[in-house]
Amino acid sequence: MTEKKFTTMEQMESDSKILFDRACDMCIDTWQTRAQDQKNHCKFGEDGVCCRICSMGPCRITPKAPKGICGADAHAIAGRNYLRTVVGGAAAHSDHGREIAHVLYEAARNGSYQIKDEEKCIKVAKEFGIETEGRDIYDIAHDLAYAGLNEYGKPFGTLKFVERATEERQQLWKKLGITPRAVDRECTEAMHMTHMGNTADATTLVRAANRAGLSDGWGGSMMGTEFSDILFGTPHPMETEANLGVLSKDMVNIVVHGHDPAMSEMVVITAEMPEFVNRARELGAKGINVVGICCTANEVAMRHGIPMVGNFLQQENAVLTGAVEVIVADVQCIFPALGPLSKCFHTKFITTSPKARIPDSDFIEFTASSAEESARNIVSIAVENYVNRKKDNLFIPEHKETAVVGYSCEAIIKELDGVTNTQVDLTGTYKPLIECIKSGVLRGAVGVVGCNNPRVRPDYSHIEIMKKMLKNDIIVVVTGCSAQAAAKAGLMSKEAKELCGDGLKRVCDLVGIPPVLHMGSCVDISRILMLITDVAKQWGINTTELPIVGCAPEWMSEKAVSIANYVISTGIDTYLGIEPQVKGSTEIMDLITERSRQDLGAGYIIEMDPEKLGDAMIAGIEAKRDALNI
Amino acid sequence: MTEKKFTTMEQMESDSKILFDRACDMCIDTWQTRAQDQKNHCKFGEDGVCCRICSMGPCRITPKAPKGICGADAHAIAGRNYLRTVVGGAAAHSDHGREIAHVLYEAARNGSYQIKDEEKCIKVAKEFGIETEGRDIYDIAHDLAYAGLNEYGKPFGTLKFVERATEERQQLWKKLGITPRAVDRECTEAMHMTHMGNTADATTLVRAANRAGLSDGWGGSMMGTEFSDILFGTPHPMETEANLGVLSKDMVNIVVHGHDPAMSEMVVITAEMPEFVNRARELGAKGINVVGICCTANEVAMRHGIPMVGNFLQQENAVLTGAVEVIVADVQCIFPALGPLSKCFHTKFITTSPKARIPDSDFIEFTASSAEESARNIVSIAVENYVNRKKDNLFIPEHKETAVVGYSCEAIIKELDGVTNTQVDLTGTYKPLIECIKSGVLRGAVGVVGCNNPRVRPDYSHIEIMKKMLKNDIIVVVTGCSAQAAAKAGLMSKEAKELCGDGLKRVCDLVGIPPVLHMGSCVDISRILMLITDVAKQWGINTTELPIVGCAPEWMSEKAVSIANYVISTGIDTYLGIEPQVKGSTEIMDLITERSRQDLGAGYIIEMDPEKLGDAMIAGIEAKRDALNI
Repeated sequence: MTEKKFTTMEQMESDSKILFDRACDMCIDTWQTRAQDQKNHCKFGEDGVCCRICSMGPCRITPKAPKGICGADAHAIAGRNYLRTVVGGAAAHSDHGREIAHVLYEAARNGSYQIKDEEKCIKVAKEFGIETEGRDIYDIAHDLAYAGLNEYGKPFGTLKFVERATEERQQLWKKLGITPRAVDRECTEAMHMTHMGNTADATTLVRAANRAGLSDGWGGSMMGTEFSDILFGTPHPMETEANLGVLSKDMVNIVVHGHDPAMSEMVVITAEMPEFVNRARELGAKGINVVGICCTANEVAMRHGIPMVGNFLQQENAVLTGAVEVIVADVQCIFPALGPLSKCFHTKFITTSPKARIPDSDFIEFTASSAEESARNIVSIAVENYVNRKKDNLFIPEHKETAVVGYSCEAIIKELDGVTNTQVDLTGTYKPLIECIKSGVLRGAVGVVGCNNPRVRPDYSHIEIMKKMLKNDIIVVVTGCSAQAAAKAGLMSKEAKELCGDGLKRVCDLVGIPPVLHMGSCVDISRILMLITDVAKQWGINTTELPIVGCAPEWMSEKAVSIANYVISTGIDTYLGIEPQVKGSTEIMDLITERSRQDLGAGYIIEMDPEKLGDAMIAGIEAKRDALNI
Repeated sequence: MTEKKFTTMEQMESDSKILFDRACDMCIDTWQTRAQDQKNHCKFGEDGVCCRICSMGPCRITPKAPKGICGADAHAIAGRNYLRTVVGGAAAHSDHGREIAHVLYEAARNGSYQIKDEEKCIKVAKEFGIETEGRDIYDIAHDLAYAGLNEYGKPFGTLKFVERATEERQQLWKKLGITPRAVDRECTEAMHMTHMGNTADATTLVRAANRAGLSDGWGGSMMGTEFSDILFGTPHPMETEANLGVLSKDMVNIVVHGHDPAMSEMVVITAEMPEFVNRARELGAKGINVVGICCTANEVAMRHGIPMVGNFLQQENAVLTGAVEVIVADVQCIFPALGPLSKCFHTKFITTSPKARIPDSDFIEFTASSAEESARNIVSIAVENYVNRKKDNLFIPEHKETAVVGYSCEAIIKELDGVTNTQVDLTGTYKPLIECIKSGVLRGAVGVVGCNNPRVRPDYSHIEIMKKMLKNDIIVVVTGCSAQAAAKAGLMSKEAKELCGDGLKRVCDLVGIPPVLHMGSCVDISRILMLITDVAKQWGINTTELPIVGCAPEWMSEKAVSIANYVISTGIDTYLGIEPQVKGSTEIMDLITERSRQDLGAGYIIEMDPEKLGDAMIAGIEAKRDALNI
């Protein structure tokens, strides 16, 4: 058996360079040129000490002007900006969850959207105290959706899913006053708190950021995950491929982009319909090839095996191949640049959400009631557009890797059950995993998540950090753009066990898993919260004691800051490879690092060098092991 | 009878100068020094073309760098910033309304908070479809409060009070997709829409700003007003005084500052209790003098005749007199500077809201259940602090003016009833006002609202514009800091009729009102919405046809931008004396001015010169009259 050759960073970058040169030849700007144009970032903004919250300003903190006109100092200004950043992220994730709840509310046995996972529907409904005995599953689902929608705006009480957390976390959150109430209330109240003339106290601002983050992770995102599973099925492992090489030179290529699975699911199903496949063949194509970008890629990969064409900074590359008939997007992380870029090709850029209207796109609104019609419209546009493809002007890089995706918590437990001695042990637990960690076969686990960012070499930190973890017998779970970075480098293939230390390799062999487990999209970090929580409960220790860390090596979006807040609030140290934009305030910096560790048992560790960041993560895990005497 | 001498700008500025010099002597910074330090405002921020929405940036638009890294152009960036500004304002106002709804929910016959206006309670409850017949008023109030709280988060439908608008507006809002749904949902969704990779289309962003603004004006603010009236009484005209001269040299001075009447009402009532008054006398004071700053001043002036010590940019001046025992604040527009400043005097700076924690203040949390105890605590601290006053180091400027405050819609109608011929005409309408406008005795009406801003000469624009209106027979209604500017200049006194043209003077004489009518705090601009709406309905024309304009000559806060959005969406042109920070985008500028007038029938008119701004307002009113052939 010949040794597998994994796609290297250099190979990927060489492909990107060719596509970049194509753009330059066509005089189209791409993120590389725009990042170059913007390279002198405003230092006040980077440090978080520019306040634009009222029109007396903007005010900027300098040694000679240590306060804004109202008297707000660097700590107040950086803290308010930080809290608003978290609100932007929590609002985005949670509003995604709300959309799914609305789809669930409209699900019908003969409708566009149906219930795929009845078991989960009943389980979650019971958590909400909804009567399930002897009732039609759609009636249960509608009650659950309504209860879920009320989690956004109920006037009293705290979020239901908070009760899923460990007792220790629930008590701590209560003590610190950060147990989240209704999701939208947390967002709105935080916007109020940061309004001119309100909170200027750094601790209060950081606590509010924790709470807003928790309303995302244990609220909006968790509902997004659970309701998506109920509607579209709880993911289980399936094989797919990743990188630009998944585009087909002789099929109609449809790129689904964005976050909410409601649109992409429907496009995937519609593109399989014989009428469209046949029409594509009539027009000379071999069929229809749907591929994904960003979190949408994760959603459809883990439920349909749809290939992943790339992650955030690869969205322009997909269009630059000249091989994309339609790129269709719903919400979040969609470059407005796709508008003018697509006009340089035959590519149709279609937007579908009233929340993400983008110039130079065709708008086809996607609602639960119009879903089938809209999807048919989109697929039809793609098929008919195939004839406009300039076949002599394609460049589809050949690199792609196989990947196994879809490790939901339920799927992980099922894999672990496969190695459980059913004579001796209970099935349906994380016990085999816990035993591996206790014994040192695995040293620990890491969740690598988040975006790409031109501030660093794209994908490099993700990939290098993961490789380092694998070598050190640390199992990796991934979501979001990190997952696609891993997939492109082959780290989500089962062959990636060859990159692992002996312990992790043995586990991969025994359980039959890759060493980097794909847990879904960014909202699915809620799956990681549940994994951590249930491991802690079954182990009988606190989450803060687990030899587990989080890492966002190349984060870019406000959502990442919301995530970081709920992860540290859940007790897991979070390693950041990009600085939060608050370093103009020593107080805020202290509050999110050292003091966070004192109060929440976890905080940020910030290190721009990926090599050192990886080392710090390993040291963090080993310190947790030492503390546990394992 | 000697002619009244009104306090001049120069006299007020001379007082401020003495207080400023005191600060300089003590090496304390004030807004004047800080504004000087911050005078080179960032041009990117001022123009709205600095994007800090993701950590790839900050990105700034220049001719050489016309797009951010994601491809967002000046229009997307300025539009997103603008929408987030509106969200900050709508969130602040609405969260204030929510607090009042919570107080109403906890009101009890023997509790700290009771129902003062049962008639309004029943009227509003009926609007919400709440059963009122034969029920205890507190049961009705609690149901109403609960319904109100649900307006923040109900999963379906639009805001109840939207049904109060004219049919024309309701239909237009529907057509444009800007009818507000639950208040918090509008805030959260707008934060989502402005997240990286979402809406980049300028029109969509401006429409979302309209909708978020409407959720404030016809939602959160209107609930704030109505529920405050139910709890604390619907205002009716009463006399008070205004300016720093209301501080007493020989009484315990308590300054109530902020916005939410729940705290200030309780402090006012407590300060009247004999035990505290007697104790003050024991300590050598002649009594207890409660005075207000900012919107809190409006709240307690119009319900208790409490004097107004000043507006936004006067908050430091109050402390600088050396005569303030306690300055107690709840939320919004509170200078963090009050912390260090109060430390230079015997003044205790007390904060009361978890939403506005400010360093160097003493925190005494104010909740519905702890209200009495907290108020006693605050008043007691003030009284006991009197002995620490340095009596040889006081400077209380002598200027003050009398003012009539408290013209709620109900009060205006009552005044108009006084001049209605009950033999011929219906009472309880705005008909006499409409007749005056139709006949030209009054040329029209203006609402002057909003803050102070060091970008212009503080109070000057407010006062000069109002004087110009009066001279031109245009009646003025005021709220917020504009009201205090008017009061300090004597424009809310009945003697101000002497400054009016013949028509307006005649109306003032006949009806017995000042020419500048005080309608309350900033959330009470909802009263102006109802005034406009009912005048339009009774006149039988659309709001856009009324010879009425809005003006925020010195606005500073995000709330003002939210207000401006709901005012133009209600069909009233809004004249701004400070530029919205969007002028780096021609599209956004067009959308909020010309295109807004095409779509909504009203938009902004921006003019930095107060003289020209006033002329433009008069021209605007006369143009409306011409169109009506009156």
